[in-house]
Amino acid sequence: MTSDKLIQAARSVEVTGPTVLLDIDQVETNYHEFVRGLPDAYVHYAVKANPNPAILTRLNNLGCRFDAASRGEIARLLALDVDPAHISFGNTIKKPIDIEFAASFGINLFAADSEMELEKIARYAPGSEVFIRMLVGTTEAEWPLSRKFGCGSNRAVPLLHYARSLGLIPAGLSFHVGSQTRHPYMWDDTLDVVAAIWRTARDEGLMLYLLNIGGGFPAYYGVEITDTVEYGRALDHAINSRFEGVEYLMAEPGRGLVGNAGIVVSEVLLVSRKHLEDTARWVYLDVGKFSGLSETADEAIRYQFIVVGREDEETAPCILAGPTCDSADVLYERNQVQLPVGLDCGDRVLVLSAGAYTTTYSTVWFNGFDPLVEHVI
Amino acid sequence: MTSDKLIQAARSVEVTGPTVLLDIDQVETNYHEFVRGLPDAYVHYAVKANPNPAILTRLNNLGCRFDAASRGEIARLLALDVDPAHISFGNTIKKPIDIEFAASFGINLFAADSEMELEKIARYAPGSEVFIRMLVGTTEAEWPLSRKFGCGSNRAVPLLHYARSLGLIPAGLSFHVGSQTRHPYMWDDTLDVVAAIWRTARDEGLMLYLLNIGGGFPAYYGVEITDTVEYGRALDHAINSRFEGVEYLMAEPGRGLVGNAGIVVSEVLLVSRKHLEDTARWVYLDVGKFSGLSETADEAIRYQFIVVGREDEETAPCILAGPTCDSADVLYERNQVQLPVGLDCGDRVLVLSAGAYTTTYSTVWFNGFDPLVEHVI
Repeated sequence: MTSDKLIQAARSVEVTGPTVLLDIDQVETNYHEFVRGLPDAYVHYAVKANPNPAILTRLNNLGCRFDAASRGEIARLLALDVDPAHISFGNTIKKPIDIEFAASFGINLFAADSEMELEKIARYAPGSEVFIRMLVGTTEAEWPLSRKFGCGSNRAVPLLHYARSLGLIPAGLSFHVGSQTRHPYMWDDTLDVVAAIWRTARDEGLMLYLLNIGGGFPAYYGVEITDTVEYGRALDHAINSRFEGVEYLMAEPGRGLVGNAGIVVSEVLLVSRKHLEDTARWVYLDVGKFSGLSETADEAIRYQFIVVGREDEETAPCILAGPTCDSADVLYERNQVQLPVGLDCGDRVLVLSAGAYTTTYSTVWFNGFDPLVEHVI
Repeated sequence: MTSDKLIQAARSVEVTGPTVLLDIDQVETNYHEFVRGLPDAYVHYAVKANPNPAILTRLNNLGCRFDAASRGEIARLLALDVDPAHISFGNTIKKPIDIEFAASFGINLFAADSEMELEKIARYAPGSEVFIRMLVGTTEAEWPLSRKFGCGSNRAVPLLHYARSLGLIPAGLSFHVGSQTRHPYMWDDTLDVVAAIWRTARDEGLMLYLLNIGGGFPAYYGVEITDTVEYGRALDHAINSRFEGVEYLMAEPGRGLVGNAGIVVSEVLLVSRKHLEDTARWVYLDVGKFSGLSETADEAIRYQFIVVGREDEETAPCILAGPTCDSADVLYERNQVQLPVGLDCGDRVLVLSAGAYTTTYSTVWFNGFDPLVEHVI
């Protein structure tokens, strides 16, 4: 849950436009809880969730490792003195010069899901360890993933063999259950599929030792989720009962470590009705889909709101939208939001659990609006 | 259509990452054609389509006027010495201090679609001209708009009266048929609805004189569109036959003026198959939904592609995706794209008609990728 310290800061901080406030102590708390639940795992924080240097520095000091999606993220990690041995380059789609860049700094753990990617890694980072990302079926994640990443399950073992033939070290497998997987039992079917491939590979003499379970650990957005420690323990058990020889269990939490560590501070610009007989009001905020709240796409992530000074007012349903002239900049229409009946222009609205996938998702200058501002409290 | 000059430049320009090349002469050509088709209209270029200073300067020199979505866009226009009398503030959702900012520089034409917005304008830009934006039914636009903007048609006249009671000048009406409306006949139903409200208002003593027909003028993305001059003439006729007393016919083309004036230069990062038996290849570019090609959302805008050096090769269907670790960063999957059979990592891909809604749509640093670069040729 969000800390009182952060909520209090968000109530009173002076801002000139939409701003994310971050509580780095909360990130530390989340990290400790995560490790308590999954003590055998090497945690590689998914930098893409929030690459704020204060977050990276704190996690680095705690012994956390990192998964980078790009050369840009790697460069930032190196600039913060992160040990290259603690960085994985987990994007399965890499530019050759970026692989070369990573290898030149000593990074030697890469993801791949295709022949061509393995060939690039073999050429630009020869001898590296690679894990093969598998495409797994849709789970009960709030935000199931598309088919973009991973190879079909009948291709994983051949790709591991191919990696070896190219002089790479076929270290293991990775997969992703989908963002915001709220309960550990939702992992079971996927783990069964991956474990079968794992066994086949080892039976064929590929001594896999790295299992990367990816991310998907949930943050709280109003729907019940399993407590972090309990979640980790259940998952740990589910893994141990299925996999043999795992020496490097790797997890890539992003949202789970930083989601509840951020609040977006925003302002109501307009309250209106389209027709006199409409029951729902249209409420327009100074923050929207193009300034950080992209994860409202298809209303997938449902943020929780506090309207400062109106906590005790009666509420009524609202359609919520952002400030741009883009008609797609509507946050919630099917899932209307309950907001105070007296809501007015100038009211401050806090968007909770907005620490992940907000700041960097902001557009550079869409409609002439500046990107989301970040503040560490 | 895209100029040969621009295509030639895009073939050979040196880039370090995804880059938009802009041909400002093409913008001038588009402007002249637009004016030839609609000679009676005051053209207010929708700055949000592409706020590149070279575009704004050229259009300003040609006598074009501007519609701004935000204080940021207004500030840029003023910095380029645009006459404030030539700027409308067309966003119906404005921060009070931004209205005050605009008024302080002499801007006095504002959009509104609600009581609250009129009250803000009356307070912070007293005595200004306002036009009321109407919510019109879905048309045959490629990208129909949501219900985000505009008041229901039974509210437009009361809002005009309300504006007058607040000391504002109720100048007229505006509407938007939806982006990428490919043929002029698609405007007819909407024009009928707006004309009925226009007549009612004038019958009630509101001497409306401003009709803002918004944007929606198409760019070419592979599906036939009516030629610009013919389009304008047909529309001009459709308006004249329906509206009386229009002294300020206002149009807000954005895409129509700049769409074909830009090409995104990108690079193939990876070509793969998920299963051996798959017919369609997955092709990953270094540009995607989060670095400028946001308008591929729901595969609405279908860009055309040229693969440099493989123009004469046989083609086969591909699923096209961007470079980030986000599974939503898929450009075309339902509508597969025909690309050369020999497509390889490092190939240069030109994305045509990418001059509108690309550069500013880019995220600031999502997944650690830098925003789209812009070059004027």
